[in-house]
Amino acid sequence: MNNEKAPTLKDVTPRSQDYSQWYLDVVLKAELADYGPVKGCMVIRPYGYAIWEAIQAELDRRIKATGAVNAYFPLFIPKSFLEKEKEHVEGFSPECAWVTIGGGEQLEEPLAIRPTSEAMICSMYAKWVNSWRDLPVLINQWCNVVRWEKVTRPFLRTTEFLWQEGHTLHATETEAEERTVMMLDLYRAFVEEMLAVPVVHGPKSEREKFAGAKTTYAIEALMGDGKALQAGTSHNLGQQFGKAYGIEFLDQNMQRTVPWSTSWGMTTRLIGAAVMTHGDDSGLILPPRVAPIQVVIVPIPPRKGDWSVEILPKAREILATLRAAGIRAHLDDRDTQQPGYKYADWEMRGVPVRLEIGPKDVEKQQVVLVRRDNRAKSFVPMPGLVPAASALLTSLQGDLLLRARRFTEENTTRVASYDEFKSRMADKRGFLVADWCRDGACEAAIKDETKATVRVIPQEGEAVPGTCVRCGRPSPRPAYFAQAY
Amino acid sequence: MNNEKAPTLKDVTPRSQDYSQWYLDVVLKAELADYGPVKGCMVIRPYGYAIWEAIQAELDRRIKATGAVNAYFPLFIPKSFLEKEKEHVEGFSPECAWVTIGGGEQLEEPLAIRPTSEAMICSMYAKWVNSWRDLPVLINQWCNVVRWEKVTRPFLRTTEFLWQEGHTLHATETEAEERTVMMLDLYRAFVEEMLAVPVVHGPKSEREKFAGAKTTYAIEALMGDGKALQAGTSHNLGQQFGKAYGIEFLDQNMQRTVPWSTSWGMTTRLIGAAVMTHGDDSGLILPPRVAPIQVVIVPIPPRKGDWSVEILPKAREILATLRAAGIRAHLDDRDTQQPGYKYADWEMRGVPVRLEIGPKDVEKQQVVLVRRDNRAKSFVPMPGLVPAASALLTSLQGDLLLRARRFTEENTTRVASYDEFKSRMADKRGFLVADWCRDGACEAAIKDETKATVRVIPQEGEAVPGTCVRCGRPSPRPAYFAQAY
Repeated sequence: MNNEKAPTLKDVTPRSQDYSQWYLDVVLKAELADYGPVKGCMVIRPYGYAIWEAIQAELDRRIKATGAVNAYFPLFIPKSFLEKEKEHVEGFSPECAWVTIGGGEQLEEPLAIRPTSEAMICSMYAKWVNSWRDLPVLINQWCNVVRWEKVTRPFLRTTEFLWQEGHTLHATETEAEERTVMMLDLYRAFVEEMLAVPVVHGPKSEREKFAGAKTTYAIEALMGDGKALQAGTSHNLGQQFGKAYGIEFLDQNMQRTVPWSTSWGMTTRLIGAAVMTHGDDSGLILPPRVAPIQVVIVPIPPRKGDWSVEILPKAREILATLRAAGIRAHLDDRDTQQPGYKYADWEMRGVPVRLEIGPKDVEKQQVVLVRRDNRAKSFVPMPGLVPAASALLTSLQGDLLLRARRFTEENTTRVASYDEFKSRMADKRGFLVADWCRDGACEAAIKDETKATVRVIPQEGEAVPGTCVRCGRPSPRPAYFAQAY
Repeated sequence: MNNEKAPTLKDVTPRSQDYSQWYLDVVLKAELADYGPVKGCMVIRPYGYAIWEAIQAELDRRIKATGAVNAYFPLFIPKSFLEKEKEHVEGFSPECAWVTIGGGEQLEEPLAIRPTSEAMICSMYAKWVNSWRDLPVLINQWCNVVRWEKVTRPFLRTTEFLWQEGHTLHATETEAEERTVMMLDLYRAFVEEMLAVPVVHGPKSEREKFAGAKTTYAIEALMGDGKALQAGTSHNLGQQFGKAYGIEFLDQNMQRTVPWSTSWGMTTRLIGAAVMTHGDDSGLILPPRVAPIQVVIVPIPPRKGDWSVEILPKAREILATLRAAGIRAHLDDRDTQQPGYKYADWEMRGVPVRLEIGPKDVEKQQVVLVRRDNRAKSFVPMPGLVPAASALLTSLQGDLLLRARRFTEENTTRVASYDEFKSRMADKRGFLVADWCRDGACEAAIKDETKATVRVIPQEGEAVPGTCVRCGRPSPRPAYFAQAY
């Protein structure tokens, strides 16, 4: 194992010094994203977008495996449509961007840029659904949405972002609840397996739920600075949207019935979650399953002689071998940079495995593999390269999740008193597991006093009654509190 | 061969009666798209979107094979950014939708919803490009764009549509021209190979080119009503956008140089092209390579007895066999509809091959395959099903292109006189190949008098000088004229 720090190419602010600045430095310098000309709108650069493409491909596959299909609904939602569901419009209207001019003329009715598509999609479902035979409807959409945000940060909170939003209709309440929980489980598994980001999950409090939902379930991950990030949500919408948008079906007894609906989404925020969960002071550490480049080959030139004769042909052969095995490999054959510069450059970009090959290695028919996370070095004979590289990527993927899970566990604290709650929240933060009376006023006071909100209320196992950490009234189960992004 | 017309489930207006209504009937009844609440904005329903997904997957693969990578740029373009390139803003500003209110407040500067992204992307390139080593830049984006259209039609012309737009920068003029032509070739091959839509190609006239381009190249296809449809464009933008947006690089002689740029795009309009090129009075005929369902299995119930015992198990086995062979197959096991209804239903949706299996077929260990285009029937022994179905799909794909190419050729006429030009354009239309003086005023007069515009000016082979069909002045090469969508 070799723990020496590689020479730093582009300095990033250390995490311990300013976590928020570290995040921005890494996102910009690794070229994941850049600021666009409109406040709060980011440009997702090719390296960042390639991560999104990896997320999309696998998430799309998993969503389709549940029977859902993709479609595309309009960007523009007429004001009157958004207003049909009262809670919904109250929640989203303040965040809307409005188109008021089109084709050189003032529009009769302003059009909202979709902040989410319940209003649009439910309006169409009202046209399409007539009978119980039309149910369930299981449609997903990949698109951009806009929410006018005051404080923005690339990936974590942007005015425009990319996401998928699933919208389903069901003949029974039970089925809608099952779908809501199924998608939450799918999200949890996806985020843990692909991004190596461990999460806690469960329903939200009334105050924190989606505008118009009966119940919102979420997955929440703990970031390196002890703040929680909501990584995905799944809403049981009950019959509220069905009623508001006039969706009805004839059930098997020929009764007109309003169907039960759900919606669920994950966004480009997931990229920010992976950056914050795994990165270190040298830059990103990307989980192999979503890394645009899994193995970067850095050829070491001979002291004397010509690398294009002695090294590069072998490096190209290795590139071809790795790619043929389905490993996303890249050969850094720039002749303008020294290996040390390249090491730092690819560490910044979080490439999971670096493959070094120099004159000695060619001679010995071996290569050097270096893990990004702990910089452990191994010498691998060329004939065994593919299985060795695959095994290393698999271990790294698993180890990132283990490390992050350990961090989450170490920063999850059961608190019994409000003094402890306040002092922890003022210091190291993290998830605080605390009894809570379910009163929104108490929740609001906790937020005022500590900036912490209820993230989720895990439902596993038997109820554990207690007394509210703040007011002492009864609590059916403890909730997870945290300051949140 | 069996040419009998299947019973019609949902009548569509015959093409010969009203081509335009036939198109709308088919698009709506096959559930490719539906009208949304905002004029000109369509909903792409799951069956139509699955075609787009097939187009996207293969087009994305081909674009990436040229070295381009994907990224995502903001939806909103500040007014001042759009205005930097004068011709560009003049062309697009009248078609823009403007956001004037965000987060409850009037914006200081209106934001255009992107009608195309040159202004945004070139602004970012000005930040990113410094040296010849940064070139070429080869970036593609998949996104939605908005152009405020007066007359709209699903897929063919909609206020919002989906597309890919590539934007490249090059160190030399030659390289930019090569990229422009390379992408045109890629589009031509894609449209012919995947959608079986034959095209003519070449540069546009000055009047018809993209606002701000040096040269616009296009591929144009002839629809069943003798009108042309622009299916893809590739623009050589020269240095005009580079200058307008302040992009410069240090070349190998350390001289500050403005790079040469290109842009190129294809849209959801391609789906409309495929519908109009291949469809018939029974509905869609989808080219197998983009068909969401390539083979639909319709089980025929026994007169007596239980189909779930005698037929369905075999049908399910066939479904699994086809899917395992990579064929997109679907089993229509609805117990509420007769086979005749199902035949018409799947013909409407354009499924290339129908597989019938009834009691006699099970007994004989065979199935019946029926082609959608000519309804030719073949009896295939079950052990040979996969190769037979694959071969049928391949033939059908090829035959659709041949048939469409024959139609285009039969409707392409070399015209020598303006009288002939006018009478053909008033009657059967089609492509008219005519000498033209290159004068925009003459072109405008031809449009006024015949509704025909210059579609492309093919450059293959030696120049063929002639005299302008309208004014008699010299013409270097004939141009393709047509009325256009």
